[in-house]
Amino acid sequence: MIVFLNGQFVPEEQARVSVFDRGFLYGDGLFETLRVYAGKPFRWAQHLDRLKRGAEFLNLRLPIPPEELKQAAGELIQQNQMPECILRLTLSRGVGPRGYSPRGAEQPVVVMSVHPAPVIDPQNPPAWHLATSSFRVPAAAALANFKTCDKLVSVLARAEAEAQHCEEALLLNTKGEVAEAAGSNLFWITGDEVNTAPPAAGLLPGVTRAVVLELCQKLNLSARKQVVLPVALQRADGVFLTSAVWGVVEVMSLDGQSLSQSPLTAQIREAYQQTVRTELGIIG
Amino acid sequence: MIVFLNGQFVPEEQARVSVFDRGFLYGDGLFETLRVYAGKPFRWAQHLDRLKRGAEFLNLRLPIPPEELKQAAGELIQQNQMPECILRLTLSRGVGPRGYSPRGAEQPVVVMSVHPAPVIDPQNPPAWHLATSSFRVPAAAALANFKTCDKLVSVLARAEAEAQHCEEALLLNTKGEVAEAAGSNLFWITGDEVNTAPPAAGLLPGVTRAVVLELCQKLNLSARKQVVLPVALQRADGVFLTSAVWGVVEVMSLDGQSLSQSPLTAQIREAYQQTVRTELGIIG
Repeated sequence: MIVFLNGQFVPEEQARVSVFDRGFLYGDGLFETLRVYAGKPFRWAQHLDRLKRGAEFLNLRLPIPPEELKQAAGELIQQNQMPECILRLTLSRGVGPRGYSPRGAEQPVVVMSVHPAPVIDPQNPPAWHLATSSFRVPAAAALANFKTCDKLVSVLARAEAEAQHCEEALLLNTKGEVAEAAGSNLFWITGDEVNTAPPAAGLLPGVTRAVVLELCQKLNLSARKQVVLPVALQRADGVFLTSAVWGVVEVMSLDGQSLSQSPLTAQIREAYQQTVRTELGIIG
Repeated sequence: MIVFLNGQFVPEEQARVSVFDRGFLYGDGLFETLRVYAGKPFRWAQHLDRLKRGAEFLNLRLPIPPEELKQAAGELIQQNQMPECILRLTLSRGVGPRGYSPRGAEQPVVVMSVHPAPVIDPQNPPAWHLATSSFRVPAAAALANFKTCDKLVSVLARAEAEAQHCEEALLLNTKGEVAEAAGSNLFWITGDEVNTAPPAAGLLPGVTRAVVLELCQKLNLSARKQVVLPVALQRADGVFLTSAVWGVVEVMSLDGQSLSQSPLTAQIREAYQQTVRTELGIIG
């Protein structure tokens, strides 16, 4: 596999960073995960916009302009011959003097890599089981707005879920309210209303979440941002997850208890796939 | 500089990890920072014990036994001819399949590096100014007990403090209670009582903090773990910070407001330095 590292295309074995890179030392960086369809990254601009806002917040400089990065992403996809893939873009603060202070770390590192996309059968789309994590996320934390490399809570929550034979973990905030999932945002359906938690609940506002909120408008479904306790999910008419990698995924159960399934979930999933095809000009 | 990387001693330029190392991707790792005096790491066993407990919590394997690591640390210090230094030991989960799940990441990475220690004049020890961070730490979070590589809050809090010409940042928890500082634990003195926040306030229980708590017993000072609001620091007879790198550091001001200075701080600092010399068999 070929990796993009600071402007160079290098074989995987050479795609290495210093052990003094602050991304490795402190998780001092940001990343984006995009789904590439037919060679084209979906919602590139929105992902880059989040990265840029995060970089501003972290006082990190993006050393390569977004337009150049986009071109390089296209070349990377081509060199790896992976038109259907996951594209990860990482921005780390690079090497600096020892210690937490970011002073003196002046050479940020940019990495892009491609990874096989999960194969989804449209006739038999994935349906997941959810386990509530014992890890809580802070409510209303400024950092939650950005996709930072500090992702140990997601890692450990996912591991907890897998130990319970679930695919994904429900993350509550420190007040016990529904925030999101380890690697996805969460929606629940009540009647013809589509609900998701507000950013203040402690979630990362996902790009796919934003697309689904746009779609609700088009589908004449009212979309609401609500703060709820997990019991609201059990009472809901349907629950689904959104992520760039998997799109819209129905949730079958929470902590072993079956959840209702709503036909709206399939409708939203299909509308999402249609949006992808339309925006990227994919025929069929 | 020579770096220890997975059992090898390599020049700094070759001390590199894969861009797919989960330490770099997600902060999926742990570290320890030790002060080395006269070639000997202080409280090696306690640091390693915390690392081992963290590794157990993260379900991470330490691929090199602690005794071998200790020997390698000694060799590293010697090869770099740095008897007075900071030793950083990092344990990362290494490379695995894409995604948060730690499944399949079976080759953890161990790195040790040495860095110049700050030169402290005993006649004129450092005295710091503290600024309250806008970042809050979660109270009673299980992960706070371990020194994980998810350290962006410490990085950004330190940057905030430096922007206010302060050396260190005070971290409050989400309830507004005193927890610790960005890279140190915090103590405050009331009469002949020495106070620090309990782990449930959301702090990393530091090794130097533990040594100071031991010392209080020897010095016949009562040590108390207390949950307080920051106003307690303003009213205290003295405030100091503890860290492996700096030892005991007096705090002069908080958010621009002068704090009282207590003679106990100097007494504890001297007792700490004496403990270091005694335990490591350093004469003078």
